[in-house]
Amino acid sequence: MLVVQKYGGSSVADPERIHRVAGRIAAVQEEGHDIVVVVSAMGDTTDELISLVNKITDTPSDREMDMLLSTGEQVSIALLAMAIKERGSPVISLTGSQAGIITDDVHTKARILNIDTRRLGEELAQGNIVVVAGFQGIEKVGNDTTTLGRGGSDTTAVALAVALQADLCEIYTDVDGVYTTDPRIVPEARKLNAISYEEMLELANLGAGVLHPRAVEMAMNYKMPLHVRSSFNTNSGTLVKEVENMEKALYVTGVVCDHDVAKIGLFNVIDKPGIAFRIFKALAEEKINVDMIIQSAMRDGRNDISFTCSQGDLKKALAVVDGLQAVIGADGYTHSDGVAKVSIVGAGMISNPGVAAQMFESLYGEGINLEMISTSEIRISCVIRDKDAENAVKALHKEFNLA
Amino acid sequence: MLVVQKYGGSSVADPERIHRVAGRIAAVQEEGHDIVVVVSAMGDTTDELISLVNKITDTPSDREMDMLLSTGEQVSIALLAMAIKERGSPVISLTGSQAGIITDDVHTKARILNIDTRRLGEELAQGNIVVVAGFQGIEKVGNDTTTLGRGGSDTTAVALAVALQADLCEIYTDVDGVYTTDPRIVPEARKLNAISYEEMLELANLGAGVLHPRAVEMAMNYKMPLHVRSSFNTNSGTLVKEVENMEKALYVTGVVCDHDVAKIGLFNVIDKPGIAFRIFKALAEEKINVDMIIQSAMRDGRNDISFTCSQGDLKKALAVVDGLQAVIGADGYTHSDGVAKVSIVGAGMISNPGVAAQMFESLYGEGINLEMISTSEIRISCVIRDKDAENAVKALHKEFNLA
Repeated sequence: MLVVQKYGGSSVADPERIHRVAGRIAAVQEEGHDIVVVVSAMGDTTDELISLVNKITDTPSDREMDMLLSTGEQVSIALLAMAIKERGSPVISLTGSQAGIITDDVHTKARILNIDTRRLGEELAQGNIVVVAGFQGIEKVGNDTTTLGRGGSDTTAVALAVALQADLCEIYTDVDGVYTTDPRIVPEARKLNAISYEEMLELANLGAGVLHPRAVEMAMNYKMPLHVRSSFNTNSGTLVKEVENMEKALYVTGVVCDHDVAKIGLFNVIDKPGIAFRIFKALAEEKINVDMIIQSAMRDGRNDISFTCSQGDLKKALAVVDGLQAVIGADGYTHSDGVAKVSIVGAGMISNPGVAAQMFESLYGEGINLEMISTSEIRISCVIRDKDAENAVKALHKEFNLA
Repeated sequence: MLVVQKYGGSSVADPERIHRVAGRIAAVQEEGHDIVVVVSAMGDTTDELISLVNKITDTPSDREMDMLLSTGEQVSIALLAMAIKERGSPVISLTGSQAGIITDDVHTKARILNIDTRRLGEELAQGNIVVVAGFQGIEKVGNDTTTLGRGGSDTTAVALAVALQADLCEIYTDVDGVYTTDPRIVPEARKLNAISYEEMLELANLGAGVLHPRAVEMAMNYKMPLHVRSSFNTNSGTLVKEVENMEKALYVTGVVCDHDVAKIGLFNVIDKPGIAFRIFKALAEEKINVDMIIQSAMRDGRNDISFTCSQGDLKKALAVVDGLQAVIGADGYTHSDGVAKVSIVGAGMISNPGVAAQMFESLYGEGINLEMISTSEIRISCVIRDKDAENAVKALHKEFNLA
């Protein structure tokens, strides 16, 4: 069997943890499996490097950021390889470039174009455990190191698993797997033994943290099974895989809450074609990631338009809206950063039309007001007051019998 | 004009110093010159990485050490490039591999085989200041990063200067240049404005610190002028170059003292062919660097043999000697680590045969006993008691009018 394992920064934060991870890896090889390991930078390394940059310039070039940040993973792979060799197992570390991870040239958020697996194949054939630097690759035009941006190491692991036709891709993290909701809020939260790619993608997009949506999407496209589990114990985690009979799935799988939400509302915008386009194009040009968009019922040829973005983007978004106010003929605008987005996710929703009503009723029963609603095939999200978020999560977890 | 500059770790130890160095570099370009800059790892970075290794294994593989340690210079070049760009100057950083520095595959002490200057040439042609990681290269068989070992960054700078046919190679350090002796011991010590390659090589071999012998040797072979100067001021430093009329040079240029000396003496060794060979081959096999070797006058078919090595190698050397004692027929052996080596260097010695006598007389006048003596064409070294070293340096500096 060929296994790809990925360990996050907290799993290799110090020499002791590196030794523990090394032991786990060596054991897999001793069981007779081939193994490729992807690691992130140790603990806070990346933050420390960025704080150095902040003392030097406010406008670092993306290429030089990649030159700098890619060292973090290079340190991890060398130290982990040393720890594995210390146990007597044959091992080699490879940078993204050496592992054949070819990307486009969009520095700091490069996309993987393809993987040249020759070197990986040779090292595996020689019986080596191969430790690969996550988060990085090389662009072949300039022959420069690139980094993959957020979720980069998860993406590296899945991409390698796909390219090498691995049997399994294990994502090690500091929690036991994917939960029905955050166990810090709802102690009865239950670890899911399995979840479909689609559900995992929704949960990941909603900020469930354990796995980056980019990696889930790639795994889904190539049907690569993922096993999300803890590096601190040997418990079985959550298997993310293709679910044959989606109808048989639980109709709600999990509850997620995202506190990093800000809401902006525009009043009495002229209702004519091109207005919404103008607003959201201007926001996109400022690289503001707009999440939910609600256009309310028209009255007298006028609309209210509301949208959400991250709290970090609120200031920039308000500046854009302020500049547009006259052009789009809005009476005014308002904003709030005291909101949260609570979502339920479940593949079974497609065939259970009553779920939305059940969710709204449950929140109504808690006296919680819904400020915005948006839905996908397998997800329903409500924007509510941030102070109500914890109650909402508890109520929904109970309502859908997730404990 | 094309200038290669090299900055050591102390010159780029923190963001403030990096900014200062960036200013100096940008100024050179503004004067209309092309410039390639070689940097070492920031301050104590390398030591910090090694202390991490020590917590993981006592026997790291050399390849993984190179994977690890090469990150130090990669951090420096990225940050320095950012600081230069912050001043509005066009700049790019290159790793050893990107700069085309091809080495053999002897990890942790690789030798440069050749430099493929294509990328360097392209970047210079585009008007970029090029910042290159010192101390590192790539071996083309395994496509793996190598490091050059001690003096690596000096060697990188000289090799790039030679390969690019630079007009000048400036070595920036934390002192003003090469001195007649250590100014901390002799306050009257004088900075030399110029020195020949041969003299610099002797001084560097004797531990004068500012420049590594390896780099001096390469500069000498290719007649590349070196300018050793301080990164903390704009004073002119010491020019290391070919001296046409060596006879005209000062007959003594400098006084150097090395405290890292241990002495081992073997008594009454059988005087027959192959005995000395046996001793020093055994020491070489243990990678002990033997410096001076003295074989005293024969009496009754027996010799006394003494040699010096670094204090760090003393224990290993004693073990070797102990194992050989019976084979070589020695009566016994002794050792001392309370010794120092004081040397005078000067190209003029060749044509001034009285220099040795003058040196011995001066030391005799101070009541200093000479335990061992060795000479080259342009150097005389004496091993003396360590406690006498400071007096010896002062006396010789005065004797040869170096102030």
